[in-house]
Amino acid sequence: MPSASDTNMRFKFSILALLLEVITIVLFGIFVEYKIGSDSDALYPHFQDVHVMIFVGFGFLMTFLKKYGFSSVGINMLIAAFGLQWGTLMQGFWHMHGGKIQTDVRSMINADFSTATALISFGAVLGKTTPIQMLILTILEITIFACNEHLVAEVLQATDVGASMTIHAFGAYFGLAVTLVLYRPGLKNKHENDESTYHSDMFAMIGTLFLWLFWPSFNSAIASRGDMITAIINTYYSLAASTIVTFALSSLVDKRGKFSMVLIQNATLAGGVAVGTCADLRIYPFGAMCIGILAGIVSVLGFRFLSPLLESKLNIQDTCGVHNLHGLPGILGGIAGIIVTAVTDQTMHGVQLTPGKQAAALGSTLGIALVGGALTGAILKLPFLGQVSDQNCFDDSVFWEVPEEEKGHEIHSSNRDENSRFEAAM
Amino acid sequence: MPSASDTNMRFKFSILALLLEVITIVLFGIFVEYKIGSDSDALYPHFQDVHVMIFVGFGFLMTFLKKYGFSSVGINMLIAAFGLQWGTLMQGFWHMHGGKIQTDVRSMINADFSTATALISFGAVLGKTTPIQMLILTILEITIFACNEHLVAEVLQATDVGASMTIHAFGAYFGLAVTLVLYRPGLKNKHENDESTYHSDMFAMIGTLFLWLFWPSFNSAIASRGDMITAIINTYYSLAASTIVTFALSSLVDKRGKFSMVLIQNATLAGGVAVGTCADLRIYPFGAMCIGILAGIVSVLGFRFLSPLLESKLNIQDTCGVHNLHGLPGILGGIAGIIVTAVTDQTMHGVQLTPGKQAAALGSTLGIALVGGALTGAILKLPFLGQVSDQNCFDDSVFWEVPEEEKGHEIHSSNRDENSRFEAAM
Amino acid sequence: MPSASDTNMRFKFSILALLLEVITIVLFGIFVEYKIGSDSDALYPHFQDVHVMIFVGFGFLMTFLKKYGFSSVGINMLIAAFGLQWGTLMQGFWHMHGGKIQTDVRSMINADFSTATALISFGAVLGKTTPIQMLILTILEITIFACNEHLVAEVLQATDVGASMTIHAFGAYFGLAVTLVLYRPGLKNKHENDESTYHSDMFAMIGTLFLWLFWPSFNSAIASRGDMITAIINTYYSLAASTIVTFALSSLVDKRGKFSMVLIQNATLAGGVAVGTCADLRIYPFGAMCIGILAGIVSVLGFRFLSPLLESKLNIQDTCGVHNLHGLPGILGGIAGIIVTAVTDQTMHGVQLTPGKQAAALGSTLGIALVGGALTGAILKLPFLGQVSDQNCFDDSVFWEVPEEEKGHEIHSSNRDENSRFEAAM
Repeated sequence: MPSASDTNMRFKFSILALLLEVITIVLFGIFVEYKIGSDSDALYPHFQDVHVMIFVGFGFLMTFLKKYGFSSVGINMLIAAFGLQWGTLMQGFWHMHGGKIQTDVRSMINADFSTATALISFGAVLGKTTPIQMLILTILEITIFACNEHLVAEVLQATDVGASMTIHAFGAYFGLAVTLVLYRPGLKNKHENDESTYHSDMFAMIGTLFLWLFWPSFNSAIASRGDMITAIINTYYSLAASTIVTFALSSLVDKRGKFSMVLIQNATLAGGVAVGTCADLRIYPFGAMCIGILAGIVSVLGFRFLSPLLESKLNIQDTCGVHNLHGLPGILGGIAGIIVTAVTDQTMHGVQLTPGKQAAALGSTLGIALVGGALTGAILKLPFLGQVSDQNCFDDSVFWEVPEEEKGHEIHSSNRDENSRFEAAM
Repeated sequence: MPSASDTNMRFKFSILALLLEVITIVLFGIFVEYKIGSDSDALYPHFQDVHVMIFVGFGFLMTFLKKYGFSSVGINMLIAAFGLQWGTLMQGFWHMHGGKIQTDVRSMINADFSTATALISFGAVLGKTTPIQMLILTILEITIFACNEHLVAEVLQATDVGASMTIHAFGAYFGLAVTLVLYRPGLKNKHENDESTYHSDMFAMIGTLFLWLFWPSFNSAIASRGDMITAIINTYYSLAASTIVTFALSSLVDKRGKFSMVLIQNATLAGGVAVGTCADLRIYPFGAMCIGILAGIVSVLGFRFLSPLLESKLNIQDTCGVHNLHGLPGILGGIAGIIVTAVTDQTMHGVQLTPGKQAAALGSTLGIALVGGALTGAILKLPFLGQVSDQNCFDDSVFWEVPEEEKGHEIHSSNRDENSRFEAAM
Repeated sequence: MPSASDTNMRFKFSILALLLEVITIVLFGIFVEYKIGSDSDALYPHFQDVHVMIFVGFGFLMTFLKKYGFSSVGINMLIAAFGLQWGTLMQGFWHMHGGKIQTDVRSMINADFSTATALISFGAVLGKTTPIQMLILTILEITIFACNEHLVAEVLQATDVGASMTIHAFGAYFGLAVTLVLYRPGLKNKHENDESTYHSDMFAMIGTLFLWLFWPSFNSAIASRGDMITAIINTYYSLAASTIVTFALSSLVDKRGKFSMVLIQNATLAGGVAVGTCADLRIYPFGAMCIGILAGIVSVLGFRFLSPLLESKLNIQDTCGVHNLHGLPGILGGIAGIIVTAVTDQTMHGVQLTPGKQAAALGSTLGIALVGGALTGAILKLPFLGQVSDQNCFDDSVFWEVPEEEKGHEIHSSNRDENSRFEAAM
């Protein structure tokens, strides 16, 4: 059993965070300048939509756990705020002009995008890691992401405008590899805090809706001007279709025909993920809706049947089910890209898109994500970083001052052992 | 008393939803294409504001009921996601080009608009219908709405830029007719779940505020470019005025002078509804604020005095009080349009606006809404569709898996009969 | 001890609010018209972001108190809805054209801005004032703010694009002067309701995030077209840096190394305040991040060490800690403006910026805020306005109908005296 110091992060966390921030600022001082004369004005509304998705969307989507809301929305904010700085540098190093990284609204969108990978992986390990571990994961994942993105976009010249592969599949499989390496046998029996309450599910719907609503902006933000509206329209209808299918299947797979909040919160979004790769191609609303329907089916079945198997057979403990929201629909998006470039003639910036390039992009993304995630998991396991004990998983009070009243209330109703457990851990 | 199967929707709902989605996709495949060269870029921020109103605004506004939050925000999402697809088709069939429906951001705004009618009607029957009934209502109401909108805009050539008549009054009186036909004598005494809690009222304020904030976008989204800013300014000041009046009257009509959450959540929005018809006309902020004040007065008095009468004397059980937020202010908006076109010289797209056309638009809207709603109510009453029992009204657990902890908590505090009731219904 | 009538506001509040609204409308009828041919289209997305900050951001940020959520979000709405009308007039009187006040989206942004001062001051006195007092404060503060803003921008010709001085420092020191004059010795021992619950802290995070996300729009909204993107980029990175520092220091200053919600909710925003004055100057992301770091440090240390001192030694009871979020970072922003104009050559609209002008702007702002706040506090103390008793502080039920269930629940858990206290106050 871990000793008290494992989760007392007073100096370790503070010093690491300050050190990283100082390094980041120094690098900004050396490398970062403004970009002159860009299309920033027109892109700013898109940026703000993406920005809301990253901080409110991802943050609140993960607040479904009954005692992990502070961490979900708070650590999400920490990861994203650090990640957007780190992402600016890592993506910028691949696109320097005269030895300088140029920032504008487009680079801010890309910086926000890069944080999404770490936030998706955060969903896989939610409740089982420390803020220290998450800072390290953020650095490593965004660095590797920037390399893979360069490989996909510049070397392989594949299209992935809405980042089904480079963000969603990448973030999901990276996170799954991390959580596999950090496997906790002690959580084989469901942890008492690994569940929602009525109000925590309501908070999570705030996240779901803002993700759902602004997904057309996500998938179109880096499209070329002429294709932006195409990406918006396709994403709008793909999401609508996946939502109807999710409601239908959610009822169908339940023995009493009831809707499940976990499915409504997550699988409704699968259409946005899966249509990403070919969002700006002329697949028409019809094509987008077909992709959305498949995504909804895959996601619901993943949550209902595959995730329990992955957990029991492969020791993959995926707290938020990111495999079903980002992993499978991300792969679906990659496959859709292969099919669309195979059966139609599509170009991007004058370059012919081919199913071969698309398949290579999907393969490299999955491979790099899994290897990168496994290495990251191994690093996060280093003993001096500290771990949360199994008992303390899914519990804000390990890292946050939690209001007394609430704790009193909880004790009152059921968890009499909360207080003593809490003391022991400190 | 209804038997268990009435609310077990496993196969009925799933098959209906999947069937409707397949039909919709087939129609999209045949008819829907992209529109080239439109003003989509400039309209996209307006679209996103409207989009947030539909899903977050309407969805959370209805979460005030203590045990019906999942359904409010969830079924709202279901209705809107299906409705926007159906609305694209129904509105598109009136405006085909070469046998095709052309989609762009403007058509997406209109599709979102069309769902608002069904969501307003949902407010009238909230807590008393099944998801199956709501899908059918959505199809019927949007179909009828598209016909009436065509009549008002194209045949009568009346103005209604913010849709006071065609959306708000239409949705409200349609919903009131439905709820009248579905009258439940068993709910004459207030149902124990037909009330709010402290936190459910807080969630509802999220809905109120996003509706309030983005209403200027709603009222200006389909205005011509030159009048858009006029519509924004008028709506901004109308809402501000109706908000102050609502606070003042909310205190005045309470015997202890206290504010009522139901009024603050709803009547503050009446200024946005009522200014809709003439939002893009040159009524100046002064005119807009006068309309806002009247709307606030009408709405508060409606909630306080008229709704109880409608319920006790006319058997109209209007859960959210849509008559006071959308019905009366919608009529007020229609009347304002008649007066403004009577006393000033106004044109739209070069066509002279006349009080006669405006009055005909208001009359036809109310008539079609009431008849359409009554017919829809009769269809929803068909026994094989299933009904919620009176006892199970306003209760998520009939259609949703609800977290155990919460149910335990509720039982613990007061509702010991919850569990047994729940079992009986299944 | 105040008698029952002190908080029964039925006629006093209603008549005051209606009277103010009527006066406002008459003034609008005389003075306000549309502005033709402005840059409203381009500014509208910025306006909407600022609008969300004012109503959702400020409103929900203050919902952290366990029994004061209705008032926080509701009275915030009242103040803002009245304030934006009053601000239109007060700012407009300084910029009349042919005896008329011209409204467009830019004037709406400025009207929203003016309400922010009253909302910041509301944070200082939160839980201790009546709606009547807040209406009077709003009138007085916005009137004085408009004068000071004119002095700073037109007379002194200082720059303050993001209003670090004219809004944040002004609102904070105005509010601190008010709360000093309204000092309540009876609250020296922490009031039992002056604390948060788990869910009230979650609601507050909604406010934090929407403020954080849209702050780049706030700081750039009134920048000249060419400098807008600069202001956006600087604010984005300043906020990110202050967020990391806030997390680091929040852990560091806690003896068990835990994060504090009050710090994460507030100090993460300090970077947005402090970078305001020179947001549109070419300080580069590096400069912005340095300001953000300092702001985070100042804000955390202010909450942790200075606020308790101000309360115990200087009788300044600052409920939300606005001194640490708006006051100190606002001064820091003013100082940054002095330094930047001293060490670099900066012009605004062709006018040379000088450290002397900047220092005069900071000094005049602080002086006018403190004197204006003290006078306002003295007026609010007038006995016939009514006061909340110490016992009834931080309690919605004095001004709002609060759902019975919740009160029942609260009584059940701990506050058995709630009901009797409530009766006594009426």
